[in-house]
Amino acid sequence: MSVEAPLQTDLRQQVHDAARRARVAARTLAALNTETKNRALHAAADSVLAHVHDVLAANAADLDAARAAGTPEAMLDRLALNPQRVDGIAAGLRQVAGLPDPVGEILRGSTLPNGLQIRQQRVPLGVVGMVYEGRPNVTVDAFGLTLKSGNAALLRGSSSAARSNEALVTALRGALLGEGLAEDAVQLLPSADRATVTHLIQARGLVDVVIPRGGAGLIDAVVRDATVPTIETGVGNCHVFVHAAADLDVAERILLNSKTRRPSVCNAAETLLIDSGIADVALPRLVSALQAAGVTVHLDPSEEELRAEFLSMDIAVAIVDGVDAAVAHVNEYGTGHTEAIVTTDLAAAQRFTERVDAAAVMVNASTAFTDGEQFGFGAEIGISTQKLHARGPMGLPELTSTKWIVWGDGHTRPS
Amino acid sequence: MSVEAPLQTDLRQQVHDAARRARVAARTLAALNTETKNRALHAAADSVLAHVHDVLAANAADLDAARAAGTPEAMLDRLALNPQRVDGIAAGLRQVAGLPDPVGEILRGSTLPNGLQIRQQRVPLGVVGMVYEGRPNVTVDAFGLTLKSGNAALLRGSSSAARSNEALVTALRGALLGEGLAEDAVQLLPSADRATVTHLIQARGLVDVVIPRGGAGLIDAVVRDATVPTIETGVGNCHVFVHAAADLDVAERILLNSKTRRPSVCNAAETLLIDSGIADVALPRLVSALQAAGVTVHLDPSEEELRAEFLSMDIAVAIVDGVDAAVAHVNEYGTGHTEAIVTTDLAAAQRFTERVDAAAVMVNASTAFTDGEQFGFGAEIGISTQKLHARGPMGLPELTSTKWIVWGDGHTRPS
Repeated sequence: MSVEAPLQTDLRQQVHDAARRARVAARTLAALNTETKNRALHAAADSVLAHVHDVLAANAADLDAARAAGTPEAMLDRLALNPQRVDGIAAGLRQVAGLPDPVGEILRGSTLPNGLQIRQQRVPLGVVGMVYEGRPNVTVDAFGLTLKSGNAALLRGSSSAARSNEALVTALRGALLGEGLAEDAVQLLPSADRATVTHLIQARGLVDVVIPRGGAGLIDAVVRDATVPTIETGVGNCHVFVHAAADLDVAERILLNSKTRRPSVCNAAETLLIDSGIADVALPRLVSALQAAGVTVHLDPSEEELRAEFLSMDIAVAIVDGVDAAVAHVNEYGTGHTEAIVTTDLAAAQRFTERVDAAAVMVNASTAFTDGEQFGFGAEIGISTQKLHARGPMGLPELTSTKWIVWGDGHTRPS
Repeated sequence: MSVEAPLQTDLRQQVHDAARRARVAARTLAALNTETKNRALHAAADSVLAHVHDVLAANAADLDAARAAGTPEAMLDRLALNPQRVDGIAAGLRQVAGLPDPVGEILRGSTLPNGLQIRQQRVPLGVVGMVYEGRPNVTVDAFGLTLKSGNAALLRGSSSAARSNEALVTALRGALLGEGLAEDAVQLLPSADRATVTHLIQARGLVDVVIPRGGAGLIDAVVRDATVPTIETGVGNCHVFVHAAADLDVAERILLNSKTRRPSVCNAAETLLIDSGIADVALPRLVSALQAAGVTVHLDPSEEELRAEFLSMDIAVAIVDGVDAAVAHVNEYGTGHTEAIVTTDLAAAQRFTERVDAAAVMVNASTAFTDGEQFGFGAEIGISTQKLHARGPMGLPELTSTKWIVWGDGHTRPS
């Protein structure tokens, strides 16, 4: 809350010091059993509820500042907390307590011909950095998932939510202290200066992974400048392809759900592709349905519109000649998030699912289903759109690494 | 083989063009069935054998050039091919043909309460870049593993092996062509200019992953400058910790095997840690044994020696006070590759395996066992020392990503 901007070297030092404290905390977290972690999650939920007045007061101050800065109403709504939302945040922690603990799971193992016993076991990643925008609930969600998976969290939220995040993290750290656990399992990094992000994503050797959650600009910047491994999440230019053999009732239902259910989320559809074989019937019908639902339809879209993640009640529409052209379009313009085909033709559905290069491919289902909760993971830290480590909704197992443990009896390897 | 250095923009264009051709090839590779890929691997093995004279002639030219440049004998041996080694390279391809195909494996799946059927399926990564030094056999090994896992390979070997690699890749591409497959499944990038590496690791959107294989300098440079996701491999500052309750016969055997079996490989031991509780007996005995085996023992090592990956007949020796101090030392100085404890005490072994942060932890076994072949993977593309995606020896499954495929029946998500 200092009005003076810290010197860059101080800020770097500050981030590195936090990362070192997180490393120390992470070593103790890795050794905690499931019961202890679950108890801590319930204590954290209790603490958030006990601090509800502080949290709401801090949030009101954030909202005042945002309003004074002319923040649009939709953004204010993302930032706003109220008693119901705080209840929901606490309930989220209890839900994570109920999820299976991934740490210690044996993934593979065998006794080698020479008698060596090898096993591959899940272990925490260590120190997980999160860079995110907007909603203060992400602060608590990230804490819950990282704690349950035995990791320490270094959180860098947006400056617009700084006071809310501070109040929430204070509640979380208090709960950890009360349980006799390392407070530094969760730390909030300063958000006033963009350079914090740079220092975090370049703290190689101190931070094990950084997960950016936000718009394309944030994610591109993180990936470009990071030396710490990162997981790209959540940029979704998702398509709905209406194949020549589609049932148009089904197509209309899926299209509207994919576009209008929650236009601001990453699994919302941004482009409608219509097979030329049914364009004369399907185009007018689907465009009318979209317009009737309040969607602005970009017919004859520009290259830029085809690449856009609108995150609004807008959609681009393009005509393609059959499945292969649809696949080519999706693989060229998509962001590898979620792609849907509507068809009654099995071969078309199979070709589309096989050839589309994305985290999730839907057949006759809304793009809105790509979601950790929907997939049965209970909660998610984000939706990975990259191919390494995790792809699609990331639950607790995706917040772990593995370690090979080998038991011998004086074994040496022959040359 | 042009004597003129290409302009930087041309070189970048050249790498990007190769990556685009690889992308096109990768899409066809992803759809191949296992039989077709296995047939191609056998054809590739036949072709390497059929080209043995070209390969050996090219290798002789590489060796002449290296000798003229004053390359040390050990390096020349790494570079050298002979008929037996070429036989071994071809046999490696046939061995990969015999391994299970990871592509298409269903990892998880369920029918959700709403009837949606979701399944997580292994898919190829797409375009895999490899940057490596020295041995020309890596060229063929990398091709075999990437092809079997349905990926296209962009190979950037060392300039010292340029002619050998060229001859091998010509043989491999000929085999692909003969099988009616995309030749661009394997491409060799120019090796004369270091900038090729930079262009490859920054071809985000064109290349899906880059795996550097080589010394710490290469790997650091790749990780620092890459915007494409990378997998760090093979830097091993491995420790053998002789605990107070160790059987010294076992300790001596494991230590000598870990250090001297092949000192130039990444799983060789570089530091011996001796528990202070038995230092008076263990130190003189183990140091004598090392010296008798021709190892240069660095007693009272500098900070630099404690961090060194000697890759030679050198070892640093340090005394530590018990398991926790050994763990702290290993976690501070190690590179997260392989760490071994020698002990008869169960609690000490468990504490060490739980707390050491490394890809592999050995109890009473040589560090030399961290190896894809030893672990039963059949072959490996490298040994990952990072925590994301893959950790330890990387076999075929580690060269894949996953995709969620969701089958519905007009499913929409309620708000």
